Parts: sequence; C-alpha cells; structure tokens
Amino acid sequence: MPVYNPPLRDMQFVMHEVLNVCDDFRAMPVHAEVDADTINAVLEEAGKFASQVVFPLNISGDTEGCQLDQATHEVKTPTGFKAAYKQYVEAGWAALSCDPAFGGQGLPLVVNQCLYEMLNSANQAWTMYPGLTHGAYASLHTHGTDEQKATYLHKMSSGEWTGTMCLTEPHCGTDLGLMRTKAEPQPDGTYKITGNKIFISAGEHDMAENIVHLVLARLPDAPPGIKGVSLFIVPKYHVNKDGTLGERNGIYCAGLEHKMGIHGNATAQIVLEGAIGTMVGQPNKGMQGMFVMMNAARLGVGNQSLGLTEVAYQNALAYAKDRIQMRSLSGAKSKNQPADPIIVHPDVRKMLLTAKAYAEGGRALAVFCSVLLEKVHHHPDEKVRKDSDDMLSLLTPIVKAFLTDNAWTATTLCQQVFGGHGYIKEWGMEQYVRDARINMIYEGTNTIQSLDLLGRKVLGNNGATLKKFGKLVTALVMEEGVNEKMAEFINPLAVLGEQINKFTMELGFKGLQNPDEVGAAAVDYLRVAGHLVFGYFWARMAQTALREIANGNTDPFYAAKLQTARFYFAKLFPETATLMRTARAGSKVLMDTELALA
Amino acid sequence: MPVYNPPLRDMQFVMHEVLNVCDDFRAMPVHAEVDADTINAVLEEAGKFASQVVFPLNISGDTEGCQLDQATHEVKTPTGFKAAYKQYVEAGWAALSCDPAFGGQGLPLVVNQCLYEMLNSANQAWTMYPGLTHGAYASLHTHGTDEQKATYLHKMSSGEWTGTMCLTEPHCGTDLGLMRTKAEPQPDGTYKITGNKIFISAGEHDMAENIVHLVLARLPDAPPGIKGVSLFIVPKYHVNKDGTLGERNGIYCAGLEHKMGIHGNATAQIVLEGAIGTMVGQPNKGMQGMFVMMNAARLGVGNQSLGLTEVAYQNALAYAKDRIQMRSLSGAKSKNQPADPIIVHPDVRKMLLTAKAYAEGGRALAVFCSVLLEKVHHHPDEKVRKDSDDMLSLLTPIVKAFLTDNAWTATTLCQQVFGGHGYIKEWGMEQYVRDARINMIYEGTNTIQSLDLLGRKVLGNNGATLKKFGKLVTALVMEEGVNEKMAEFINPLAVLGEQINKFTMELGFKGLQNPDEVGAAAVDYLRVAGHLVFGYFWARMAQTALREIANGNTDPFYAAKLQTARFYFAKLFPETATLMRTARAGSKVLMDTELALA
Repeated sequence: MPVYNPPLRDMQFVMHEVLNVCDDFRAMPVHAEVDADTINAVLEEAGKFASQVVFPLNISGDTEGCQLDQATHEVKTPTGFKAAYKQYVEAGWAALSCDPAFGGQGLPLVVNQCLYEMLNSANQAWTMYPGLTHGAYASLHTHGTDEQKATYLHKMSSGEWTGTMCLTEPHCGTDLGLMRTKAEPQPDGTYKITGNKIFISAGEHDMAENIVHLVLARLPDAPPGIKGVSLFIVPKYHVNKDGTLGERNGIYCAGLEHKMGIHGNATAQIVLEGAIGTMVGQPNKGMQGMFVMMNAARLGVGNQSLGLTEVAYQNALAYAKDRIQMRSLSGAKSKNQPADPIIVHPDVRKMLLTAKAYAEGGRALAVFCSVLLEKVHHHPDEKVRKDSDDMLSLLTPIVKAFLTDNAWTATTLCQQVFGGHGYIKEWGMEQYVRDARINMIYEGTNTIQSLDLLGRKVLGNNGATLKKFGKLVTALVMEEGVNEKMAEFINPLAVLGEQINKFTMELGFKGLQNPDEVGAAAVDYLRVAGHLVFGYFWARMAQTALREIANGNTDPFYAAKLQTARFYFAKLFPETATLMRTARAGSKVLMDTELALA
Repeated sequence: MPVYNPPLRDMQFVMHEVLNVCDDFRAMPVHAEVDADTINAVLEEAGKFASQVVFPLNISGDTEGCQLDQATHEVKTPTGFKAAYKQYVEAGWAALSCDPAFGGQGLPLVVNQCLYEMLNSANQAWTMYPGLTHGAYASLHTHGTDEQKATYLHKMSSGEWTGTMCLTEPHCGTDLGLMRTKAEPQPDGTYKITGNKIFISAGEHDMAENIVHLVLARLPDAPPGIKGVSLFIVPKYHVNKDGTLGERNGIYCAGLEHKMGIHGNATAQIVLEGAIGTMVGQPNKGMQGMFVMMNAARLGVGNQSLGLTEVAYQNALAYAKDRIQMRSLSGAKSKNQPADPIIVHPDVRKMLLTAKAYAEGGRALAVFCSVLLEKVHHHPDEKVRKDSDDMLSLLTPIVKAFLTDNAWTATTLCQQVFGGHGYIKEWGMEQYVRDARINMIYEGTNTIQSLDLLGRKVLGNNGATLKKFGKLVTALVMEEGVNEKMAEFINPLAVLGEQINKFTMELGFKGLQNPDEVGAAAVDYLRVAGHLVFGYFWARMAQTALREIANGNTDPFYAAKLQTARFYFAKLFPETATLMRTARAGSKVLMDTELALA
C-alpha cells in the first residue's frame, strides 16, 4: 500500500545546482569526464530498480523475516530477497562506484550515495546485505595486500560475494578493547580464529555464494585493550588459488536475533571455531582497517535514515491529502466533501514539513560528504585531500547521529499523521519507525558519535576543523549579507555561527577542568552543530532557488524550496536555543545524583 | 528478564507528604474515614498482584498476541491472560473505587489510579481489558437509567463483565460527526443497530463472560454531524430479567488488527448486524455520555504512559549499573573491573534522569488529578466541585498528551541505554517503546489534545482556568520566594508563570485574527503548559523534601528527590525556551506551503 517515488529532481538540484559536483569532478583526473547527464541517467535507472524491484519486498520482508536452519547453519532470507539481489548484481549496481582495477564502473561515490538513499527508502533491511559489502570493500582496498585484493575485490565489486564487519561480542560493543576472540598464527602464515561475535548484520544469508567476514581478534601476545586488536579476513568458504570456492570455513551462524525492526536482515550470532583467516594490515593495528569500514558504515547509517525520512514523508503527504476529517479552523476548504483533507490543519503540515526539511537538508549534507570522500581519494592536490579528510571527519558523526535522530522524529511524526492507521502494520508506517530505531544505536550509539564530535573532532584540535566549516558559513554570510531576500535565512545562521564559537570555547575550557563537562554537553552540542550544518545547506539551497527565480525560472520547484527553507529556519532551527541552555547547565546536575540513581 | 518493583514509597510521598490527599478526603463524607495506612496497605497488595501475576505475562503476551477464530468470532487472548484476570476479579481489584451501591469497595479514586499505574507498568496490553471497563462504568453510572445501572453496574464493578467504547469507523476517527452506524427504534423501546466499527480495544476476548459495548450510532431522523449521534449499550450477550445471560447479540468481531505494539490486547473490527441495544441518555446527545468515558480514558492513557516510563526507567537503571563498558571520562571508577559500569557516563545518567523526572512528575500530576475527580463527585461544596471540574478539564489534555509524549522520549532513551541489546526483543525494552507509541495516538491524537487545551480549555474561557492554576503557582512562589534553598526551583517556575500569561494573551489575540495561529501553536503550547504544571509539582516535591531534611529526617529518599528536581529544572524545563519561540513563529510558514506540499 505504501508509495515511493525516487526524488530524482531534488537529487539533481543538490548535485548540479547547489553543489555543482561536476565542477569538483573535473579537477580529479579519474572523474574529469563525468557529466550531469550520465549521473542523472544512471540514477533514473537506479530509481526504477529501487522502487520497482526492492520496494515491493519491504513489508513482506518485515513480516516474514529470516529463518535459520540450526542443522546446516544456513539462513533463508525472505521471499524475493535473493531474486532481487540477483538482479542487483546482474545489472551492475554493486560495482557502480568501485575501482575499475577490480571490475568496478568507477563512477563517483555520489552516484552510489544516491543509489543507496533510494535503496534505503525502498527497503532498509534488504539494502544492508549489499550495503555492508561497500565498507568491507573499502577496508580491503585500503589495507589489504595485493593478494587479498586480487582474491576478494573483484567478487565484492560485482556483488557476487558480500561482506560483513564482525566487531561486537556479548560483553563488548562500544568498548572493543574488552574483546576476547583469539587468533593463533599458523605455520603457513594464516591464523586460526576462535570466539563469539554477535549483532553481525547480514552475517549469514542465501543471497550470495560467499560471505567475506572482516573479523577483529587478538593475537596470543597482543597487548591488552584496543591496541591489541588485529583485523582478519575470514571467508565463509575458502577461496582456491584459481578463484573457485573451496572448503567451508569454521565460521558459523549460531542464532538470529529477534529484533524490533529490520526483520528482513539477518542479525547473526557468529561462532568462530578455529576458522582460518588472513591478517589485514599490521598486527595489533586492526582498528585502522576497521575504521575505514566503520566510517563508511557511519555515513551509510545516516543514509539509511535519510532514505526512511524521505519515504515516510512521501507516504504521510499522500495520506494527508487523501484522508478527510474535520474542517479547517479557518473555514471549510473542500465544501463539496463532508470534511476537509487533513493537510489543511497547521499541525499536520508542521509534521509533514519537519520530515521534508530533514530529508532535503540531509540529502544536501550527504551529497556534500560523498564529494568530500571523493576528494580524499582522488583529488590531485594533497592539501585538498587533507582538508577534505578533516572536514569529512568532522561531519561523519553529524551525519550518523543528527540524521538518525531526525529520522526518528520524522518517521514518528509521519506515523502520527496517519492517526490510528499509523499503528497498523498494513499501512507500513510503523515499520519505518521500527527500522529507523536501530540507526541511532548501531555503528556507535549517538552518544558515542557526540563524544567523537565534541571530544575528538572539535576540542581535539582546538576547534580548527570546526572553524573551517565556520569559514564556509562566513563566506556565505559575506556573500549574501546585503541581499534582503536572503536575510531570513542568513541572519539566524550568522548568529549561530558566532554563538557556536563562544559555546565551543566555553565547553573546551570547562572540559579541561572536568572531562565530565564534555560528556554532559556532547549530545546537545552535536545537535547544535547539526543545525549549523543544516542551516548552511538550507541557506545555500535558498540562495540557489532565489537565483533561479530572479533569472525568470518559473519551475515551482524553486518556490517550494524557499517555503521549506522558511519553515526550517522558523520551526526547527530554534531548537538550538534550548540545546545551548541545557548544555550550559553542565554536568553537576547529572553527576551529583548518586542517591537519585541508587 | 525485565524487572519491576512497585514504586510504593514514591506513591506514598506524593499522596501523603506532598498532596496530603487524606486531608482532602476528610472534607468528603464518603471518604472521611479513609486513612493513609489503609491506602498504603491496599497498594502494597496491588503492587504484588501487578508485579507477580501480571508482569510475567508481558513479553509472552506480546510474542503470542491474540487469535481470532473466524468461524465463531471468538478471540483467544495470550496464555495466562485469562487466569490472571480471574485472580484480578476474585481479589476484588476491579471494584476498588467503584460505588458501594453497585458492589464497589468505595475507596478513593487515587487508590485505583495507583493500582492502574502499577498494572500499566506490568503489562499495558493486559491492563486495557479491565481498564476500559472503568470508563464504560463511569459513563453508565452518570448517564444510565436505573434499570441500566441495575442490569450492568454490579457485574462491571466486579469485573465479571468488561466494557468497551465503540466510536471509530473506517472513515471517521477524530471526526465522529461523519459516523454512519445506524440505530433504528424498535416497538419495545430498544434499537436495532447496524454498522462497522474499528480499533475497538478489548473489543472481543475470552476473559469475561460478557462484554458491554457502548456504541455511538445515528437515529434515522438524526441531524447531520456530531449533534446527531446517540449512545447505546450493546451487550455481547443479552441479559435476562434475572441477570443471567441470554442469547448472543448481533455484534461480532470480524477481524483483529496487526499492530506495532500492545499485541496482547485485541484491537477488534466490530460488525453490528441488527444488534439490539438500549439508549444511554438522550437522543442525539450521545457525546455527553461518551465524553465521561473519553475523559476517563484520556487520564487512563496518560497513566499507561506513566506506567511505561516507570518500568522502562527501572530496567535501564539496573542495566546501567550492571553493564561495564569503557572508562569514566574523569578516570576509572571501578578499578578492579576491566571497565566501569556505564552509569558513570554523564549522558547515560541524563537518559536515566529524564525518565525518572518524567515518571515522578507525572505521578504527582496523575495523583493530583485523581483527587480533583474525587472532589468533582464527592465534595460537599458546589464551588469546590465546579472549580475542581474546571481544573481537571484543563489538566486532562496535558495528562494525555504531555505524559504520552514524555513516555515516548523516556522509553526511547531507556532503550538507548541498552545499546544494541535494547533493539533485541528478549530484553523487553523495545516493547515498551512500541507499546508507548499508541498512547500518543488513541483517545484523541496529541494534536487534538493540544487544540482542546489551547482552543477550548484556555482561550475558550479567556484563560480563566489557566489563571486558577497560575494562582497555585503564585501562592507557592509567594510562600517560598524568600527561601534561598528553594530559589533554584522557584525562580524558573516564577518566570515561566509570568511568561505564559503574556504568551497566552498573544496567541489569543493572533487567534482571533486567524484561527490557524491557534492550530499552529497548540502543540508547542501544550508542552509549555505541561512544563508549568510539572515545574509546579517538582517545586512542591522539592519543598517537601527540603522541609523533611530541615526537620532532621535522614531518609536518603529526600536528598534523592532534590537531585532529580535539580536535574528537571536544569535539563528538561528549559525546553520551554524553544517552544515559545517556535510557537511565536506563527502559522504563515506552515500554511504558505502549497508548493512545498504539492
């Protein structure tokens, strides 16, 4: 019953009118030839695949879930998942932005970003099977040996094999230093790995012929803690020299979790019983390779929530126009009907616009990040590579936490638009809420993201990277400060841009005296930073829309964009007022609570 | 695996130390003899029943759900539900606060309030079966004929028969004026009723021998809209003159909804095929009787969310003390363990304290409301009855919407404390979130509550009732304004008390010019009012705690209460800063969005 229309027009707007991504690509030899038409044409096809093949499996996949055969340890995915994945592989979607050296199509990452936004809108649970492969691919591409790359990357680019990341154990999630899984060196240079992993997304399934697990484990002589963790490739099936599949490796699915959502994805308990693996990177430096994957996954999780926000919005909008109930407070609007469509009610519009503003702001940020990542890999200028890496490091926890918190709000509000029907499975809205929930938790909880942002990315370099983002804001303010039509967007942004510097310095100072001050303020801080970033992109989108209108462009898309920008600055952005106040309320009221929390 | 300890100490604190409910009862002849010991003793037993009998069925009830036999139209509730209900009836819990004239025990409503908070903590889905009966009972008690009362109220007091409210139809929820179900008068004074109802909670089940449906329907000559709706009793089984059960009536369950949560409760599609009913109250005045039930239900829904907030808090607290992961930012706290319990982290404490502050503030408000309702029914002074009724009318939408929104936040945060384990069904936390979700929707969505509050309860009488609440605030400010120890609680409350008057006047003025201004501000306004009310009760609780400490009472309960009060005012109350700002941003940015919402 739900609908999904790929937001191609908005993607084109962000890519080609606001951010001019092809200008950036022209500076990179590998992408110098990429043009907007190519990108748009690929995404149009991608949208068809997402909406026509993957989307119809979303509710059925949730209802059916995954089944583990305890005897064979094999997992059966929901009906239709395997066939859709076969189409995905055959059409080459897996290889879109992969390295041509390993069979990839070499398109810019922004294409993959937009493909995955649409796949996530269509079906988050299904999309996690191919989605996790990209992180494992990136980790091996960066840290693997030539032999490892030759053995695995072609098959991962094609999607014939999928990847996982095996970090978590029952007693350790956030705190990977507590890890117990052991890797014993073998005479042939391989390792025999033994231990228990949990929460392994796409950890076992029937969609690909092999699964390439990237597993964290400890060497016998490893130092304690996170500095004694190494990374290993542990394939489900060994790979023969000629590339064919060999024996089954000693890595099994021992159970599947019963979860709140993403039922179509197999969240596996993985047992390693002397499984044979090869090391990726250096001994005890496993987190280096894992962080490549984890950073990709964090951006990917933000993208999951972007997708859910968009699809929830589209469905709530359709329902709000269709459902008639009560009259407008300002007088009947549909006099030929017994009641007005509920979209006439201000609060219904507020709920819809919240989701819309979060989706479109999130899309601009996500596309921006994909271009940064492209520059990190492919820009000829080392300084640009370094600056892009810094900026992406700053924005990654914001993408992960701000987009996923926003999606929780947005999917909940879109469900609310449906009234009682929103609580009923058949309408599909409650699934978006359940699926969105995990995104705030996995790949580092949103509290962890906030500590990463404030503690490491901001205070860790005395606000240097934040100031770089601040320079973008200042440049825009300078550029548009005298444009009266931009005042409603520029003024609040300029104010926050100034406030956040003082706010950051304050927190840095307090944090030096008492580190708990950082922990107490971090979650509020991340949302303030998120609004600075969203405010910047919303102002740029408004700037582009105003420019087009001034140039006589009558496409209503631009006037619509201005309406959403106005809503964003009037109704969502002011959240920063409370956030700065509560952050400043400090840690004492949290920490002096031994009796209250007894 | 989850735990639940009835919060008897906090209930006693609120009832006997803060609100001194027995002083109020002494002024009412029917309750003049009730003392604290009696109330406490009953609640201690109630807590055992809730935690030992009903709580263990919560997760299993969610997993198993209800089954409809399509051939017989009978519903099988989850294993154990029926047996627990039998114990409930036999122990007399149903009759606790019912009228002795109909077999009730005649205890004050506050006892029932606290019983139901505990039952809701234990198992919301189970508790809805007996819970809805109270509203139907109250409606019949107020509007039924003597014959109707004699026929139904004894069995409903005892719990042998349960009640429902049948309002919603597929095309009408909020807008009951669109209702189509028809009632044709019969020569014997009864009515033959035909139509389709949906979303009927506890609409069919195997726990009681009869179900007393209160059904809204239209007479053949009814005027259109809400002024043409009448109320009828339609029992599942007819009742013979001697009180025994007769023939099966023509009212059937045609289907059960598949829902996000409250799986243990049967949400029935009800078909009436010439079902025979008798009218309650006057023709076309059905909403009068229904509103008795609906107001009871709205307080009841707030109480459901209070219960969920409390139990989610208790479990998150236990987990946060038990789970070790990472070190405190301010240095290791449990040096003999490989990591610290996660409760050392400021943001974990913030999540826990948010739930605690919402639970305890909600408890004070809910108890206060139950005393108001008692006064409405039993106070000898007419003015007190009238004032109490006004105040309760004002507070009812706040209880419904503020407590349920808070519970959504609180259960989500408590789930977050569990990290990945929070997403797994076995831990029980995700169920609290799913169950809490319906409370924001049913019995009038929270948007409807906000319009009821701002449009009808506040602006509808030019702020007169709000000013009455303001007088309570002012009295407290006057009483404690010079007490330095109370300053941290009184000062923010005093400021908001002044701000809200100006804020309300502004909205009233804007609303006169454009009614959509009311609709645009209402949801924000309700949360501001909610914080005024919570701020008042938190200040009163702090006042009591400070008094006890000053008197030399060394029970750590009081110091704990002060810690939570400080947290509330420092971290939650400041939300009002943003809310007033966004409300003031007005309706234009919502309504001038035809293109954005195209």
